[in-house]
Amino acid sequence: MKLWDKGFSTDKKIDLFTVGNDRELDLVLAKYDIIGNIAHAKMLHKIGLLTATEIRDLEIELNTILKTIENGEFIIEDSFEDVHSKVEFLLTEKLGDTGKKIHTARSRNDQVLVDVHLYVKDALNEINEGVDDLFDLLITLAKKYKEVLLPGYTHLQVAMPSSFGLWFSAYAETLIDDIYFLKAAYKVADQNPLGSAAGYGSSFPIDRDFTTKALNFETLKYNSVAAQMGRGKLEKSVSFALSSIASTLSKMSMDICLYMSQNFSFISFPDELTTGSSIMPHKKNPDVFELIRGKCNKLQALPYEFTLITNNLPSGYHRDLQLLKEGLIPSFSTLKSCLEMLTYSLKNIQVKTNIVEDEKYLYLFSVEEVNKLVQSGVPFRDAYKIVGKNIDEGNFKPNKNVVHTHKGSLGNLCLDEIVAKKEAI
Amino acid sequence: MKLWDKGFSTDKKIDLFTVGNDRELDLVLAKYDIIGNIAHAKMLHKIGLLTATEIRDLEIELNTILKTIENGEFIIEDSFEDVHSKVEFLLTEKLGDTGKKIHTARSRNDQVLVDVHLYVKDALNEINEGVDDLFDLLITLAKKYKEVLLPGYTHLQVAMPSSFGLWFSAYAETLIDDIYFLKAAYKVADQNPLGSAAGYGSSFPIDRDFTTKALNFETLKYNSVAAQMGRGKLEKSVSFALSSIASTLSKMSMDICLYMSQNFSFISFPDELTTGSSIMPHKKNPDVFELIRGKCNKLQALPYEFTLITNNLPSGYHRDLQLLKEGLIPSFSTLKSCLEMLTYSLKNIQVKTNIVEDEKYLYLFSVEEVNKLVQSGVPFRDAYKIVGKNIDEGNFKPNKNVVHTHKGSLGNLCLDEIVAKKEAI
Amino acid sequence: MKLWDKGFSTDKKIDLFTVGNDRELDLVLAKYDIIGNIAHAKMLHKIGLLTATEIRDLEIELNTILKTIENGEFIIEDSFEDVHSKVEFLLTEKLGDTGKKIHTARSRNDQVLVDVHLYVKDALNEINEGVDDLFDLLITLAKKYKEVLLPGYTHLQVAMPSSFGLWFSAYAETLIDDIYFLKAAYKVADQNPLGSAAGYGSSFPIDRDFTTKALNFETLKYNSVAAQMGRGKLEKSVSFALSSIASTLSKMSMDICLYMSQNFSFISFPDELTTGSSIMPHKKNPDVFELIRGKCNKLQALPYEFTLITNNLPSGYHRDLQLLKEGLIPSFSTLKSCLEMLTYSLKNIQVKTNIVEDEKYLYLFSVEEVNKLVQSGVPFRDAYKIVGKNIDEGNFKPNKNVVHTHKGSLGNLCLDEIVAKKEAI
Amino acid sequence: MKLWDKGFSTDKKIDLFTVGNDRELDLVLAKYDIIGNIAHAKMLHKIGLLTATEIRDLEIELNTILKTIENGEFIIEDSFEDVHSKVEFLLTEKLGDTGKKIHTARSRNDQVLVDVHLYVKDALNEINEGVDDLFDLLITLAKKYKEVLLPGYTHLQVAMPSSFGLWFSAYAETLIDDIYFLKAAYKVADQNPLGSAAGYGSSFPIDRDFTTKALNFETLKYNSVAAQMGRGKLEKSVSFALSSIASTLSKMSMDICLYMSQNFSFISFPDELTTGSSIMPHKKNPDVFELIRGKCNKLQALPYEFTLITNNLPSGYHRDLQLLKEGLIPSFSTLKSCLEMLTYSLKNIQVKTNIVEDEKYLYLFSVEEVNKLVQSGVPFRDAYKIVGKNIDEGNFKPNKNVVHTHKGSLGNLCLDEIVAKKEAI
Repeated sequence: MKLWDKGFSTDKKIDLFTVGNDRELDLVLAKYDIIGNIAHAKMLHKIGLLTATEIRDLEIELNTILKTIENGEFIIEDSFEDVHSKVEFLLTEKLGDTGKKIHTARSRNDQVLVDVHLYVKDALNEINEGVDDLFDLLITLAKKYKEVLLPGYTHLQVAMPSSFGLWFSAYAETLIDDIYFLKAAYKVADQNPLGSAAGYGSSFPIDRDFTTKALNFETLKYNSVAAQMGRGKLEKSVSFALSSIASTLSKMSMDICLYMSQNFSFISFPDELTTGSSIMPHKKNPDVFELIRGKCNKLQALPYEFTLITNNLPSGYHRDLQLLKEGLIPSFSTLKSCLEMLTYSLKNIQVKTNIVEDEKYLYLFSVEEVNKLVQSGVPFRDAYKIVGKNIDEGNFKPNKNVVHTHKGSLGNLCLDEIVAKKEAI
Repeated sequence: MKLWDKGFSTDKKIDLFTVGNDRELDLVLAKYDIIGNIAHAKMLHKIGLLTATEIRDLEIELNTILKTIENGEFIIEDSFEDVHSKVEFLLTEKLGDTGKKIHTARSRNDQVLVDVHLYVKDALNEINEGVDDLFDLLITLAKKYKEVLLPGYTHLQVAMPSSFGLWFSAYAETLIDDIYFLKAAYKVADQNPLGSAAGYGSSFPIDRDFTTKALNFETLKYNSVAAQMGRGKLEKSVSFALSSIASTLSKMSMDICLYMSQNFSFISFPDELTTGSSIMPHKKNPDVFELIRGKCNKLQALPYEFTLITNNLPSGYHRDLQLLKEGLIPSFSTLKSCLEMLTYSLKNIQVKTNIVEDEKYLYLFSVEEVNKLVQSGVPFRDAYKIVGKNIDEGNFKPNKNVVHTHKGSLGNLCLDEIVAKKEAI
Repeated sequence: MKLWDKGFSTDKKIDLFTVGNDRELDLVLAKYDIIGNIAHAKMLHKIGLLTATEIRDLEIELNTILKTIENGEFIIEDSFEDVHSKVEFLLTEKLGDTGKKIHTARSRNDQVLVDVHLYVKDALNEINEGVDDLFDLLITLAKKYKEVLLPGYTHLQVAMPSSFGLWFSAYAETLIDDIYFLKAAYKVADQNPLGSAAGYGSSFPIDRDFTTKALNFETLKYNSVAAQMGRGKLEKSVSFALSSIASTLSKMSMDICLYMSQNFSFISFPDELTTGSSIMPHKKNPDVFELIRGKCNKLQALPYEFTLITNNLPSGYHRDLQLLKEGLIPSFSTLKSCLEMLTYSLKNIQVKTNIVEDEKYLYLFSVEEVNKLVQSGVPFRDAYKIVGKNIDEGNFKPNKNVVHTHKGSLGNLCLDEIVAKKEAI
Repeated sequence: MKLWDKGFSTDKKIDLFTVGNDRELDLVLAKYDIIGNIAHAKMLHKIGLLTATEIRDLEIELNTILKTIENGEFIIEDSFEDVHSKVEFLLTEKLGDTGKKIHTARSRNDQVLVDVHLYVKDALNEINEGVDDLFDLLITLAKKYKEVLLPGYTHLQVAMPSSFGLWFSAYAETLIDDIYFLKAAYKVADQNPLGSAAGYGSSFPIDRDFTTKALNFETLKYNSVAAQMGRGKLEKSVSFALSSIASTLSKMSMDICLYMSQNFSFISFPDELTTGSSIMPHKKNPDVFELIRGKCNKLQALPYEFTLITNNLPSGYHRDLQLLKEGLIPSFSTLKSCLEMLTYSLKNIQVKTNIVEDEKYLYLFSVEEVNKLVQSGVPFRDAYKIVGKNIDEGNFKPNKNVVHTHKGSLGNLCLDEIVAKKEAI
């Protein structure tokens, strides 16, 4: 069934091509479509376009459908274009003319818009929780391993002493930056587009404040054209936020893969968290972290996909926008699983101690020696040259006892301050 | 002069290749480098690493250099690697050993980080002002032209009545979404990285709260490793925000180019805002808007450039990060000029009235007719079919008087609410 | 079953996360996996690692599996990691020790590499056919409508006379550029990677020339490390070629959507190739072309996705590379369906004649008038000014009879030359 | 001077914004503009639009200008929009009416198109030479170091024996794939667009075969609309080819940076090819390779920049296309310098021997041991388990003498075959 059936049949090939995988993706949106339908119907009742009986009947039926969705029994057969058509069909089948009235004063354009806004809000909240869990674990690990030194690198060259405390909590604090973007995307989503109809509003005296409150939106996307332009804009906003988190996860996974290499051997994981090779019997591979890295890198292509689909399209709806769902919906589950797997795996991390005792990390301590000279009165540039000369002549014998005290140094991680900064968002 | 000179000369070719256009870009950062130097020096004095005389001398010299920067007289000769080397050279030339002390307890890594953070904060503020100006103008234009109808399109097909009021204010309200990202990027920038040194802090008891306050940062990027990881992260955050604004400007420019085409003729601009053709004497081309569109589309490639440069690099500084400046710095001036030119040009827009009287826009009013039937009691789906039949049989004679009253419709633009939403950010 | 089972069980969550949708994607590769297995087994026989009986048994079983694949009866159960494990399991189940021998002198790395190379060659050939069909149709349409004038635009402003002949064949000739890239990608694919094992070759004296010939590759990817590095490189090469075609299709679809708008009305399509609106009874929307445009724009994000996944990974296999299949495999079917639908729809295009008679296209002919003055002896720049003055003063009365004769002009389309250029590739 | 001056002055701000940095970029194109002018003028003479005297005068003047360009003395003052206006001004200043005639039968659109095509052909040839030099060096180094073993990694885990011979020549063979794309881009460039005028040809009977031959193009871009659509398409084609090479260089640089790390120490470079740190006196950093990596990664954003600028623009010229030059022109010099610096530096590479003797590389040899069991008759899967058990129980004592003989293995690098494959392109 098509909502726009007008007597001529569309070409079968065209049909197949245009519907694409909408039905499958719409199953994810179905719940939100019902919620939107209920709010819309109540509003129609409020402004006198549905009678008390009609709204009662519609609410009952919509809640019945909602239950089938929650039970996983809701399906969209091939004879329907999308979730909207299916729901309207079910209502009309049961309620006759009452069912036919539900599409009054709206269009599929604002229907799918409101579905997507509601869905995105929930999905962003789930991501937020995943980020919280990871953040908390990283702080815990930083506390636990704050005394264990780690070589710090610049240019991939041994540089200065770092620590597991610094390393774990660096990723925690970095996640805070990601949360700023998560919140920005949430603000974009938290505006009610319902009532914008096909993008130019409606001649019905609809009450958009009513649906805004009913659907728990913070505010309206007032302007109908702006609401419609939100399609694409919202998706891009979300993709910026998810990309931001993804890049943090990807970077940490790169570190982990490197640190698990025999050439570093800073960390390891229990066998059951690693995988083997089909030809090399000794291998215990960090596939989990490589896949987190790869999936998170792939996620970072999403803004570009969305931009390419929407770019240079003049204002007003275009069918191209339908393709945004294909990228959007799986991106949440992918990032969620990456967050979960990283948290899950890190709980089992095994940290090697005494790493910096190895001869190849000797020069980690060269700046410390420079600084000691400075503290004894030698100007910095001169101290730098003295230590450089010692190194060149093989006379460099550092004291490996590292005492750093300033905020954010390995001796003063400021974990409480970092937690407080996050809580203040 | 190199800050790391150690007796062997670097290969000339290597030198030329590695320095790149750092000197030119550093001129933009020079002002912030001095401000950072002053704060750092004062802090060194506070913790006893510089005497009262030394800090007095340094402050005088640094302010002298600052004046040459503000006068446009500061230059970085080919003999210097970057602004940091040049400033240290000037100080040492004047003050001898005192100059040599300024680099105590820091690295070029956190020096350039703090320069970039300070620069970005200022630059984002300028962009914010440009957005404010455009927003205000769009609201003004929406008010002025709220009565003038415009065809609304979906699928580039004539769809429903819109208005210049809706069109102008749609872009205003859309800019609010962009501002959420602008603010998020600002939050990322507004954290003091100074004191992270080469990314692993320092053995000196530096006072990072002092420099945070002195440099007017809201908070610290506490963790030294996180501060260093901010390189790349900050630039990407900024690029997300600038891209967001750019996509709004690009879309509006696309609308304008279309509406200026003879096939639409909805708007025009005074001759002096258009350009001509080298062979077609009749042409008055919308180059300004095409260039805004093109430049804003190009800007949207920036996040990908930054992501490609930084992706899959393990934590710790890498020289690749130096290349971020090349993309970052011009992006601000480009977007700023696009904002200015769009605002400047829109002030002169000429809007055509009576557009919708043209025969080809007749069907704009089909939904209105459907709705009238619905309001007289016909179920929506039946009304849809009746009007469809009239159209097919050539009997469609709509009343073109459009009365929309709901929030965000062409009869109720909610401009005050939109302004209030922006002000609440 | 895992090919690398070594006694400890992998964590269930890890398992689920790492396998991803490999099984589903591997169904597409299954056919090529068998073909690769057969060639590999024959080679093992040739070098004495399989007996005559063993190779006979293996060939029979492999061909049996191939039949189940061709019948659509082949499945990869959840207990298997991938197609490789399933096939080895089937062989071992039937043939015992003989089955266990097939993995001699190879790794899953070169197995999947050879599968992907073989698959890509076939898939590129299919795309090539789709391009050929579209090219042929465009040439036919150009011939058919070569007399019908069309306004030519620059800056979306009415510029100079064009024609449907020029328009259709412009896209045909542009496809030739795309084919150059298609051929380049094919050359990259047409090199045998089998024998590179895990990326470092094998201590068995395998005969790679034998498998190269057996699998119908033009040459070998000789170097084992290079063969392994081809993972990612091949996918990117393919994505460049597909993007190139996609951009041509997208641009033509944009033209079509514009030309179908009431503001242009240059072309139309039969009702059954258009779709309707859920609220506007008059709509006949160009969804097919919008979806071709959108899908082809989305396809152009593919190179970026592949680049992000592979970038900055050092040489050698990484599990991230497994994620390339997810993007690669659907891209072929997407582009193929876009090519088919564009060809299918264009067969039914309805072209409007007398377009340029409309008053708004008057200035199309201004250059013609300039040129006539030039041909009568007036220097070009002076002629340009004379006609410009006429236009400004409202005295422009052009002769609309357009006579262009040079190669590639609307009077001389050079269709034969364009066809010849394509055939010469 | 503007070529389209029509009496009204353009707004100063508009002027500044629209010209952008065209003048600077046009200096690179100037040489090609003159060459195109000469060919065009000769053709005008051939078809009778310029007299023998006129063409003689024009050729003399154009060659005079060419000399100023070659001497670096040609400048484009702020009073000119671009190189085309400046050249036409110079000709008219000297030759009066004859100068005014040169723009007959062309537009700036096809003028800049032909300039860019000619420029790209030369620039691609230079890149090709850079690739050749690097390829030759890599083959030489592979030959020189073919006996030196290197640990081969998968998943960044120690995997199997590799060698410097394999490593160097892997990048050589990979460059061959890049050359396929370089050739494809060259084919796209090697088609004469001159004569397409503003994208719709001309009413003059121009002889495009004449200019095609005169400008040394292999063929014409026949269709005038196709020629115009080449703007953007050509740039994207070039960017695909440059990206392909860039990704090879970037990957090799990543390997080099890793191998230079103290945790690998496989290779080193003379001090004068490294750089130091401003605070760590011991550092010898691989900045050159990091910058090659970074620049080459940045280059890989170019296709997206070009795609974003051109995507969804309908056919016909748009001013946005002018922005393509900004990305195109520097990309050649960047890649050229990266090729040169990589070749230059690799000539000085110092390779460590005896690497694999280190204890941590013991398991490199596990597959060798498996294979030996297989060759003695044990089925592969059983041999795999036996060796795995030995490893787990600490009884793994491999023979480190590696004998690989098959094509493309470390014992049989097939360098001649790889060179032959390249020469056959």
